[in-house]
Amino acid sequence: MMKFGGTSVADADRIKRAARRIVDRRAEGHSVVAVLSARGKTTDQLIEMAQEVSATPDPREMDMLLSSGERISCALCAMVINDLGHRAVSLTGSQAGIVTDESHTKALIIDVRADRIKSALDEGHIVLVAGFQGVSQTAKNVTTLGRGGSDTSAVAVAAALGADVCEIYTDVAGVYSADPRIVPDARKLDYVSFDEMLEMAASGAGVLQLRSVEYARNHDVAIHCRSSFSDEPGTIVQAEGDAMEKPLITAVTHTTDEARLALVGVPDAPGAAAKIFDALAGANVNVDMIVQNEPVNAGGKAEISFTVPRDDLRVAREALQPLAGESFSEITTHEAMGKVSIVGAGMRSHPGVAAKVFHVLAEQGVNIDMISTSPIKISCVIEMDRVPDAVQALHSAFELSGEDTIRAEDPF
Amino acid sequence: MMKFGGTSVADADRIKRAARRIVDRRAEGHSVVAVLSARGKTTDQLIEMAQEVSATPDPREMDMLLSSGERISCALCAMVINDLGHRAVSLTGSQAGIVTDESHTKALIIDVRADRIKSALDEGHIVLVAGFQGVSQTAKNVTTLGRGGSDTSAVAVAAALGADVCEIYTDVAGVYSADPRIVPDARKLDYVSFDEMLEMAASGAGVLQLRSVEYARNHDVAIHCRSSFSDEPGTIVQAEGDAMEKPLITAVTHTTDEARLALVGVPDAPGAAAKIFDALAGANVNVDMIVQNEPVNAGGKAEISFTVPRDDLRVAREALQPLAGESFSEITTHEAMGKVSIVGAGMRSHPGVAAKVFHVLAEQGVNIDMISTSPIKISCVIEMDRVPDAVQALHSAFELSGEDTIRAEDPF
Repeated sequence: MMKFGGTSVADADRIKRAARRIVDRRAEGHSVVAVLSARGKTTDQLIEMAQEVSATPDPREMDMLLSSGERISCALCAMVINDLGHRAVSLTGSQAGIVTDESHTKALIIDVRADRIKSALDEGHIVLVAGFQGVSQTAKNVTTLGRGGSDTSAVAVAAALGADVCEIYTDVAGVYSADPRIVPDARKLDYVSFDEMLEMAASGAGVLQLRSVEYARNHDVAIHCRSSFSDEPGTIVQAEGDAMEKPLITAVTHTTDEARLALVGVPDAPGAAAKIFDALAGANVNVDMIVQNEPVNAGGKAEISFTVPRDDLRVAREALQPLAGESFSEITTHEAMGKVSIVGAGMRSHPGVAAKVFHVLAEQGVNIDMISTSPIKISCVIEMDRVPDAVQALHSAFELSGEDTIRAEDPF
Repeated sequence: MMKFGGTSVADADRIKRAARRIVDRRAEGHSVVAVLSARGKTTDQLIEMAQEVSATPDPREMDMLLSSGERISCALCAMVINDLGHRAVSLTGSQAGIVTDESHTKALIIDVRADRIKSALDEGHIVLVAGFQGVSQTAKNVTTLGRGGSDTSAVAVAAALGADVCEIYTDVAGVYSADPRIVPDARKLDYVSFDEMLEMAASGAGVLQLRSVEYARNHDVAIHCRSSFSDEPGTIVQAEGDAMEKPLITAVTHTTDEARLALVGVPDAPGAAAKIFDALAGANVNVDMIVQNEPVNAGGKAEISFTVPRDDLRVAREALQPLAGESFSEITTHEAMGKVSIVGAGMRSHPGVAAKVFHVLAEQGVNIDMISTSPIKISCVIEMDRVPDAVQALHSAFELSGEDTIRAEDPF
C-alpha cells in the first residue's frame, strides 16, 4: 500500500518517478495498491474555476468538480506503468468502493468495499486509487473527504486490504523532532506512536493529516511517512509497543497563526460560557485552547480567554457582537500569537516536565499567556515573534537532536 | 433536452450564459436535461498531459483521463444554476446510465438506463449530464465515445427520455447551404432530413457529428441545431416528411484535406483489391472514395485510385510498401486534393443533376479527378486550390442562396 501526495505527482517527471517506485515495489513480489492525490496545482485551478462562476459553490457540485483532479493523476500514472511493461488500472473512489456519508466536501469514510481492488490484484494488476474521494452511501453521489483526505483514503484502503503498512510518500523525509527550518539539527524520528502523532498533528506538525492518523490508530495500520525523492526510510507511525524507543520527549511542535480573544465581565452563572461557544460554533470558528478564571474582586464576573486561527478572528468577533453586554462586558484581542508544544509518550509518568518547560521559556524571557496539557503534551500560547526562540530553546533543553536523547527510563 | 458544445462552455461567462438558457427553458415549464461537452481547451490540455508521460497512452486510462473534462463543465454549470435559484444535479455518464460496449476511446452506446435522470427530473431537478462518456457494460470501466461524442450522448439521452427534440447549441447558427466563409450569401436551412444531414456530415459539414445523426435517425429524435449566442431558431434535422420544404439540392459541402493515391499495375484477379484495403484498414487508415478502372492495353492490369485524409497519407504509404511489386507495380500520390459535394433529397428522381454538376465545374475549368454518387449526393474529388471556386459556382448554379431555391416539384 503506497500513497503519493500532490507534490509527488506534480509534473510528468514526478509522475514517472512515482510510477517507477510503484513498479519497483511490484517487482519485489508485492501486490501494490497506490492512492494518488491531485497534481500540485490542479485542485487550486479547479477551485479558481468554481470561484469564477459562483461565490458560494454548491457542495455537491464542488465535489463533482474537485474529484476530477485525482482521476487525472491516476490515469496518467497508470499510462506510465503500462508503458513500463506492467499492468495497471486506475479506479475512482467510487469504483474502489470507498463509501462515505452524505456530507459533501468533508465526507467521512463509512466503509471500504474493496472487492474490485481485490479482483484487480488477483488478476495481477497494480491498482491506482483516486484519493480524497468516495461515493455517498445513500444518494450515490461523488463526495470528497476534505483537505488532506488522500492520506485518509490510503489508510482506509490499507485497513480494508489488511496491508502491513501504508507508505505515504511526500515532499519531506519523515517526521522531525522539530521543524528543521527553525531547528537545523532537528532529528528525523524513526518511530512515533499514534498518540504522539495525533498530538503533533493537532499542535502544528503538518506532515500527516489528523484524520488519517486517527483512522490508522483505530484500525491499527502502521504508516510509513517518507520522501518520494529519496530511498531513505522515513518515519514509522504505529501503536506504542515495547520495541519502540521511548524518549521522554519526542518532538517540539509549533504554530504561528493563532489569535487570542479575552472576554471580561462574563456572568459567573451556568450556561454563560455555553452561549459564547455556541455562537462561535454556529459561525464555524474552530476554537483551540480555552482558559477561564475568576479574578479576585471581580464581583462574581469571570474572564474567559481562548485562541482561534488568526484567519477566523474577524468572523469570531462578529459572531460574539450580539452577545456584548449580556454575556460579557468587554472583548480584547491579540492577533500575533503562536503556540509551542512538546509531545512525548514518555512524559506520562514524569510530572516534572511541565516545570522544566516553564523554566526554559522563562530563561528565554518568553511570556506564557495560556497553558494546556494532556498526558503526553504541554502547549503554551506565546507571542508569535518569540516562537522560534522558544522552539530552539526547548529542543535543545530536552536534547532532541542527538543520539543521546533523554529516555523515559533515564533518571530525570 | 439541450446540449452545449465545448465553445459554449469555454469560460465562466459562457457557462453562465448556458446556465441562463437552461433556466429559461425550465421557467417555461419544461423538464430540462442538458448534456455538456468539456470546456474549449480542456480536452486538448488533458491530451497534452498524457503525451507528456506516454507515447502510446493506454486506452482505458485515456478514457479515465479525458472523461474528467465534461464532469468539470457539468459541475460548474450546476453551481451557476443553483445560484440562480433552481436546483441542478450533474451526473457522470455512468451515473446517467449511458451504457457502452468495451471499446475504449471509441465506445458505442448500447443502452441508456435513464432511471436516475428520471427520478432527478421527478424531484424537480434540472439534470446536467457529462457528454462524450459512458460506462462499459461488462467491465464497468469509464469509456469515451470518440470525437464529437457529446452530440451522440445528447441524442441518446433524448431518445431514452422520449424527448420531442434534442437542441444542440453550438458556435454556428445552424446548418447552411454552403460554408458561409466561402459563400457569403449561403442560406441558413430551416429543415434538413436525416439522410441529407448524414451525407452532408460525411462530405465535410462539421456542424453535427455523423454518429449522432445516425442515432437520431434510428431513434427518430429531431435535432435542433442552433447558436448558443443568439435566440434565433437554427436548423431542424428530422425525418423526411410532407411538411418539409423539398429543394432539389439542399447544400454544397466540401473538404480540403484529401490526398489521393493511385496504384497502377494491380493484378486483375480476385482478392487483389482486398489485400490492398486490408493493409490500409490494418493501419487504421480511413479510405473514402475508391475508383477502379482497367485501362485498355494494360495487359490485364488494373488501376486503383482512392482518397484518404491528408494526415493519413504517410501511414497509408507505409502500410502499402510491403505489397509493392506483388499487389501493384507503382504508386503515385497527390497531396493537395479536396472534394466538393452537392446533397439533396430532391435529386432522387432527377438524374439530370449530375450532368449539371459536371457542366458547372467544366465551365469553371475545374478538372474532376474522381466521382462518387449516392441517391441524394454527388461528390467530386478536385484539386484543393479549386475548391472555393467550385463551391461558389455550384451554390450559385443551383440557386441555393435566395428564397427562390429550385424545388423538387419545380420543372427542371
